[in-house]
Amino acid sequence: MLEPKTHAPRAIKLYFEDFQPGQVREARGPTLTEREIVEFARLYDPQPFHIDAEAARQSPYGGIIASGWQTGCIAMRLMCELYLLEAASLGSPGVDEIRWTKPVRPGDTLNMKMTVLETKISRSRPNMGSVRSRWEVFNQHGELVMHMTGWGLFARRRSEDR
Amino acid sequence: MLEPKTHAPRAIKLYFEDFQPGQVREARGPTLTEREIVEFARLYDPQPFHIDAEAARQSPYGGIIASGWQTGCIAMRLMCELYLLEAASLGSPGVDEIRWTKPVRPGDTLNMKMTVLETKISRSRPNMGSVRSRWEVFNQHGELVMHMTGWGLFARRRSEDR
Repeated sequence: MLEPKTHAPRAIKLYFEDFQPGQVREARGPTLTEREIVEFARLYDPQPFHIDAEAARQSPYGGIIASGWQTGCIAMRLMCELYLLEAASLGSPGVDEIRWTKPVRPGDTLNMKMTVLETKISRSRPNMGSVRSRWEVFNQHGELVMHMTGWGLFARRRSEDR
Repeated sequence: MLEPKTHAPRAIKLYFEDFQPGQVREARGPTLTEREIVEFARLYDPQPFHIDAEAARQSPYGGIIASGWQTGCIAMRLMCELYLLEAASLGSPGVDEIRWTKPVRPGDTLNMKMTVLETKISRSRPNMGSVRSRWEVFNQHGELVMHMTGWGLFARRRSEDR
């Protein structure tokens, strides 16, 4: 169960320069209940196999599965807790690829691994840089349920600190 | 304000064969309040520029903006209402690209356009096919705030109906 976070910490420890290709960060995440899966999907993805136990049982999935958007949102929260909230994050221009490789079911626990793939200083705004990273989400059996690669923008250290 | 949808309709009108490249569908969506933006972000993306008005004011965005994941989730809901809930949808293997091209701010109304790009019958499971589509989200000024291309799996009509 995710609890809302009502304030963001102010201590910035990670700037663009602190991200290096090959760095790995890992996070342990929440266990999803059927109620959480259904409540999310009723708002954002009310397809039968996400919100209706009987319809889901008759679907190729054989039971309720989580919306892929929920897995993505949980991944985002885990990455906030793991590093983004202590980073000079300036948002994201986008995602290059998402793949949902295995259904997420009630009772599954989601864990994550983030790997830095590439970093580059912005040409148009040299006081910031972008970091491309791969996010992988695993269930409690170590099976990959989702992976994505995306971009984050980060402020560079002030020039006098570099 | 999105209201939860507590049951899914059962009347399936759209099968794989009903999707053709070039088809366009459009939907009008919700107007986001600051409260909705902050509540979503407290759960899934609690970065300062999403949940803290004062920190957001001092950020490059100049005020609270919505998490890109919220825009994506709203797009998903709109597409459910527009066609997925009356389609023989079998879920999605993934998304090829998401770009957040402009911030979404409190008071913005999100509208959508879906364009079918490509369809192909599954080689491994010939009773289904995949449809690649482009989803575009616009604000009330007609400015593109997000676009993505992704895949959906759909059942084919039973062979006797084709």
